[in-house]
Amino acid sequence: MVLTKSSQELYGEYTARMQKIADVKYSAAVLQWDQETYLPPKGAEFRARQLATLSEIAHEWFTAAESGQLLEELYGRHDLTDDQRRNVILSLEDYNKQKKFTPAFVRRLSEASSRCFHTWLQARTTNSFAVFSPELQNMIRLKKEEAELAGYEQHPYNALLDQYEKGATVSLLDKVFSEVRQPLRQLLDRISGGRPVDDQFLRGNYPKQQQWDFGMELIRQLGFDFEAGRQDLSEHPFTTNFNSHDVRITTRVDEHDFSNMTWSCIHETGHALYEQGLPAEYYGLPLGEYASLGIHESQSRLWENNIGRSYEWWQTVYPRLQSVFPKQLGAVSLESFYKAINKVQPSLIRTEADEVSYHFHVMIRYELEKKLIEGNLSVTDIPAWWNEHYAAWLGVTVPDDKRGCLQDVHWSHGSFGYFPTYSLGSFYAAQFFAAAKNQVAGLEASIGQGDTRPLLHWLRENIHRWGRRYTSEELCLRSTGKTLDISFFLGYLLDKYDNIYKF
Amino acid sequence: MVLTKSSQELYGEYTARMQKIADVKYSAAVLQWDQETYLPPKGAEFRARQLATLSEIAHEWFTAAESGQLLEELYGRHDLTDDQRRNVILSLEDYNKQKKFTPAFVRRLSEASSRCFHTWLQARTTNSFAVFSPELQNMIRLKKEEAELAGYEQHPYNALLDQYEKGATVSLLDKVFSEVRQPLRQLLDRISGGRPVDDQFLRGNYPKQQQWDFGMELIRQLGFDFEAGRQDLSEHPFTTNFNSHDVRITTRVDEHDFSNMTWSCIHETGHALYEQGLPAEYYGLPLGEYASLGIHESQSRLWENNIGRSYEWWQTVYPRLQSVFPKQLGAVSLESFYKAINKVQPSLIRTEADEVSYHFHVMIRYELEKKLIEGNLSVTDIPAWWNEHYAAWLGVTVPDDKRGCLQDVHWSHGSFGYFPTYSLGSFYAAQFFAAAKNQVAGLEASIGQGDTRPLLHWLRENIHRWGRRYTSEELCLRSTGKTLDISFFLGYLLDKYDNIYKF
Repeated sequence: MVLTKSSQELYGEYTARMQKIADVKYSAAVLQWDQETYLPPKGAEFRARQLATLSEIAHEWFTAAESGQLLEELYGRHDLTDDQRRNVILSLEDYNKQKKFTPAFVRRLSEASSRCFHTWLQARTTNSFAVFSPELQNMIRLKKEEAELAGYEQHPYNALLDQYEKGATVSLLDKVFSEVRQPLRQLLDRISGGRPVDDQFLRGNYPKQQQWDFGMELIRQLGFDFEAGRQDLSEHPFTTNFNSHDVRITTRVDEHDFSNMTWSCIHETGHALYEQGLPAEYYGLPLGEYASLGIHESQSRLWENNIGRSYEWWQTVYPRLQSVFPKQLGAVSLESFYKAINKVQPSLIRTEADEVSYHFHVMIRYELEKKLIEGNLSVTDIPAWWNEHYAAWLGVTVPDDKRGCLQDVHWSHGSFGYFPTYSLGSFYAAQFFAAAKNQVAGLEASIGQGDTRPLLHWLRENIHRWGRRYTSEELCLRSTGKTLDISFFLGYLLDKYDNIYKF
Repeated sequence: MVLTKSSQELYGEYTARMQKIADVKYSAAVLQWDQETYLPPKGAEFRARQLATLSEIAHEWFTAAESGQLLEELYGRHDLTDDQRRNVILSLEDYNKQKKFTPAFVRRLSEASSRCFHTWLQARTTNSFAVFSPELQNMIRLKKEEAELAGYEQHPYNALLDQYEKGATVSLLDKVFSEVRQPLRQLLDRISGGRPVDDQFLRGNYPKQQQWDFGMELIRQLGFDFEAGRQDLSEHPFTTNFNSHDVRITTRVDEHDFSNMTWSCIHETGHALYEQGLPAEYYGLPLGEYASLGIHESQSRLWENNIGRSYEWWQTVYPRLQSVFPKQLGAVSLESFYKAINKVQPSLIRTEADEVSYHFHVMIRYELEKKLIEGNLSVTDIPAWWNEHYAAWLGVTVPDDKRGCLQDVHWSHGSFGYFPTYSLGSFYAAQFFAAAKNQVAGLEASIGQGDTRPLLHWLRENIHRWGRRYTSEELCLRSTGKTLDISFFLGYLLDKYDNIYKF
């Protein structure tokens, strides 16, 4: 007699397995967080192998044949709840994707990434792309192999995009970027002919401790739960989480640049509010995870830009800021401050770019990555291609590779297909914010009073609580009534800068 | 044809296996460190399960049949180097001990420990031993079971002692403690009849930041490598390590108690110097691990007491301290300071005890634990037994259980047999320090100049670099020419207090 396990029994096994894998993955995340915040320099070597071991365990467990059998079996059961079924379907999808990569390939990629990252650091120190070039070539070879292993339709880059943004394709991105390129170019041109904006006072002397304290105040005010997270310092700001009750953000403080810390705090808080809003009961399961990188970025950008660079919000917050820095800002009007924090000025570094020129940084990387993955550009030609496009699209001259094609860490980690999600984030953010304003009576008034709780509530209801249940496009359709529509973003920008630069 | 692997090939497999287990164990240590230092409150729940999963993996891998086969096979090989052979012998010992405990028993113990710890916290809050009693009873039942599973000669408590201090037995400890009890009792009596010592000025107002900075200065001066470690704040000071290049210590700061932070810094630095001195090339192998808890504690106590409470060392350090706290200590002479930091005063709390009365705290716990494991005292009778012995042995009246038998966390974690290693640490420390002074010309003079490098060098050569190669007693014999001899400790104390209290 064959004993058949009940669906609930099987589902319990699946949950236990997934949660143990999550334990290992999140443990690795703790080690990574520590690496970026507190690790003493000599500890790096052994830390790398500890991280590698944890990743290996998580990958092995997830891609084990038992995982597959369990998922296939559950997939055939018809007495699961909707949520259970959704978890199983998503996990099976993940499983089928992951098992295409042999442990040997995963190890090769991980080792290549370590080498590539260290070479990238050296290349930056010596300001020499040539140092980076061989390892980058190797990495691109591996990414092409990865695309072939994963499989794709139409374009190999689609296989890479899919890892960060399920459903995103070259044809979708080509369309979206072609829709924004012209209008943004025209906006940049109009702005360069508009009245100049002074932002010099943002680079006065802002003592670190006071900046930190003010940042912490903002984060709290925006709804970050300090019982379920914390902020620390690191070289590059980031958000990570070990479960939805432990979400960590980091920032950096520059005494001579008020903007540096403040908007990084708001940006990371946006990411963190999303993570804190994911359902804890689905720990380790797809419904407890974020929808996509584009959606994650929509949350950070909505808070950073649509709120954190809005006139409305600063109406109440600015007087408080002035009281913290009376010498630096006491004589600066809200109008002047608002203009300064929104100053548009095409420049070299993506992470320092304004809301308009930012997307040219992304589009350049997107076009370049496509060519590299297609094999239509050789790695040694990257600097020339890069510099040419920065001149043509942004009107800036790249003085050296450090401030050019060596500026981002992404490629050294093997993250190809990642950059477009930054722009998608801005586009979704504008659409979500417009919908929230439409759906929530008095939303703008409450923001004008410094109360963003109604907005957070809308995001929790429409985005956060769903985890990975819906794709980006499904989420967008459900919460805004439309799939991604670039006109919200363009409308928001044109309206904002028309006001600031008085065309 | 059976292919036989070479010994070096097998040894390579053993090393790889042990190091992967170490990766997992040290990852757990990172999570634990974070739990004590930075974890936001709501993160505790999921953190507990992440830690449980990592412990389970480490235990499963280590006790797997393959581990045993590999170790047995290596044990039979005769072409290993001395170091290799030593590693294999020690790992096989560990394996044979560990495999006596089924995963189910390990889980039961771990779950009982979580419950017991939480009940202990509640019992402290409500100041009620009755709340703790049922869980403690259960824990003692499990520890007896553990002793039976592990096996022992003569006394079940020996099985528990052995986990912390290999080779330590009830008969050895009975002998050692009987040798110190009388002389220490007489010393306490003489001191209580001696001239009173004023230490009121240590409880003035010492601003936190200045204390912290001074503590960091001391730690650095004592030789702690901040490139290979760091100090943070936690509720209870501790040392942990993730490899010998990443050793973390913690402390706490009390504005109204200068002693609280300072000697915790020195104590933990003693532990940390040991860990930083273990051979990194033996990462994950027995020769890269500490010898025993008694030896570990000998290092912390040697630095805390034999150096950190010595007149010689403070000769150079005290003027610097006075310059940091001129208002608080400017008018206090070195003599008065020295007496104050060595004031003897029997009291209720072990962790705050002076060097003389400390060992009565340990002896009371030792006698009590023996009785509990023998089954000669019921858990409900602990408070009465405790209070009676504090009155008889230390002359203090225990006002409540919080300041009595609920003061230590150890039992709630299932750590029975741990306390004696604290006293052994002091005894070994005195013997090691005497040997170092004997063997290193000018050692005391250099300490008098605030230079402890020659002492650290002696410890590195005689203790640290050997890892677990020798047992405590072997280490002691090799480095001092004698096995543990209590007369060094007694001589040190009698000499010191004779000087301070002028009998």
